[in-house]
Amino acid sequence: MSHITSMLDTYPKDLGGIDKSKLAECIAACFECAQTCTACGDACLSEGMVAELTKCIRTNLDCADICVTTGNVLSRHTGYDANVTRAVLQACAATCKACADECERHASMHEHCRVCAESCRRCEQACNELLASLGNGSSGEDGLMGKVKDALS
Amino acid sequence: MSHITSMLDTYPKDLGGIDKSKLAECIAACFECAQTCTACGDACLSEGMVAELTKCIRTNLDCADICVTTGNVLSRHTGYDANVTRAVLQACAATCKACADECERHASMHEHCRVCAESCRRCEQACNELLASLGNGSSGEDGLMGKVKDALS
Amino acid sequence: MSHITSMLDTYPKDLGGIDKSKLAECIAACFECAQTCTACGDACLSEGMVAELTKCIRTNLDCADICVTTGNVLSRHTGYDANVTRAVLQACAATCKACADECERHASMHEHCRVCAESCRRCEQACNELLASLGNGSSGEDGLMGKVKDALS
Amino acid sequence: MSHITSMLDTYPKDLGGIDKSKLAECIAACFECAQTCTACGDACLSEGMVAELTKCIRTNLDCADICVTTGNVLSRHTGYDANVTRAVLQACAATCKACADECERHASMHEHCRVCAESCRRCEQACNELLASLGNGSSGEDGLMGKVKDALS
Repeated sequence: MSHITSMLDTYPKDLGGIDKSKLAECIAACFECAQTCTACGDACLSEGMVAELTKCIRTNLDCADICVTTGNVLSRHTGYDANVTRAVLQACAATCKACADECERHASMHEHCRVCAESCRRCEQACNELLASLGNGSSGEDGLMGKVKDALS
Repeated sequence: MSHITSMLDTYPKDLGGIDKSKLAECIAACFECAQTCTACGDACLSEGMVAELTKCIRTNLDCADICVTTGNVLSRHTGYDANVTRAVLQACAATCKACADECERHASMHEHCRVCAESCRRCEQACNELLASLGNGSSGEDGLMGKVKDALS
Repeated sequence: MSHITSMLDTYPKDLGGIDKSKLAECIAACFECAQTCTACGDACLSEGMVAELTKCIRTNLDCADICVTTGNVLSRHTGYDANVTRAVLQACAATCKACADECERHASMHEHCRVCAESCRRCEQACNELLASLGNGSSGEDGLMGKVKDALS
Repeated sequence: MSHITSMLDTYPKDLGGIDKSKLAECIAACFECAQTCTACGDACLSEGMVAELTKCIRTNLDCADICVTTGNVLSRHTGYDANVTRAVLQACAATCKACADECERHASMHEHCRVCAESCRRCEQACNELLASLGNGSSGEDGLMGKVKDALS
């Protein structure tokens, strides 16, 4: 994770009020989960009972895709847009939850699913913690701005 | 778009109740928007006034990433999970909206931003239309299933 | 393909000596092949005989990944580097060839593999044609420039 | 890197003759380089002198794309195809070299370019070492098989 922190430290402008440590943890969790899901989908594909793991493989693929996208979005700070960051984090948390739930069903039989479920659960939690640190609840500026925007749109 | 429809037609199982035409349009819009955003970000980078286009470039990059992810998720039907599809579509719509809003600000000066804003707006709309066709409101099966799942989890 | 050509036309600088029509065709082929491979891998996953299609699914996944990367690289023109473009096109052509070869083995039994093989073959050919148009063989400027660069590096 | 090794250890079939430690290092280097390049491109975008960093940003984007693709291809072992792995590794090494060369030109002025150049150089080297471990030179089986394939194609 040290390379992520190094790069955050070299960003030439202010990172805003974001919690740098939660941000770094979430970026790390996203890329780790992406790689683990890609590997788990492939390991499932090589199991003799692959026909019973097709939903798991599909969810792995979705999860790998959204995790890389989320890791990329979180690695960018120029022209920050809270609406984009929040929506992408919510999609990532939802997909990690779905993948963790599915992998857990096979965790006792397939070690790759057990490891993958843990990685997905960690990433789901990191996304949710970063989400919680971004907003200040419905009375915060973001909440208010969101309502104003909704009213105007 | 014909290759998207061809592949939907060859899927060996039932596609569920999904609106096949809205699905194909949304997949096409996602990949078109991804390519257009990648090209627009690069065109901005080659403008003499690049320093005033940095937020646009950044939003283009986010939009390209989430559009490919959404196009991929929508191209998979095995083990369909409405929660994942919905969250990813919402993230895609939010990012396309942000990118369209930003590109529109430069549309009168930069033709690539004008073309890109249209592509983002089309993709935002396609995502929202597919989203609307997925759920039947809070009393529909999805809403009910969601509540049952929530209650059991 | 019209959105690809539109964006090429709006690029604010010179595109260099590149064959614009071959470039647009190759970008279109890359994104079409990416979507088709993602859909074919998922269709294979839903076949009853999925256990006999695992190599096909894996190759579909590799091909989808490299095709999006290649489509992105070709959509950027700022700071063009012939070595990068060439190496990426070669990797894309090699992977499309591998995927077309594998899908063709199942084409008579699975329509999605037949459609996908055609898409991969088209993309392989588009990459090879663009590659051929980039270089002029070992006696051309690129070959010479390559040698000069190698000698100086 | 431990999650990468964990997943390699859970793969249900034989990984072939591949050097597991070089493989794990290369996968780790690819994902680290992808994240670092995404962050470096964004940091460049926020520099006051962004107009002088456009080639660097573009190369960062290409490098991030090919590194994720390579990390994914290397994370899959089902139906291994040496031609695909080799071509993708070569493209990744070429792009990492181009990005390291470009970032090094700005390393004394921008710390993010210095860190990124190191990450690209590490990934270039990891790809080249894995490439070297894959083949046994022109007299090895791969070389021979390649010649036979070429002769038959």
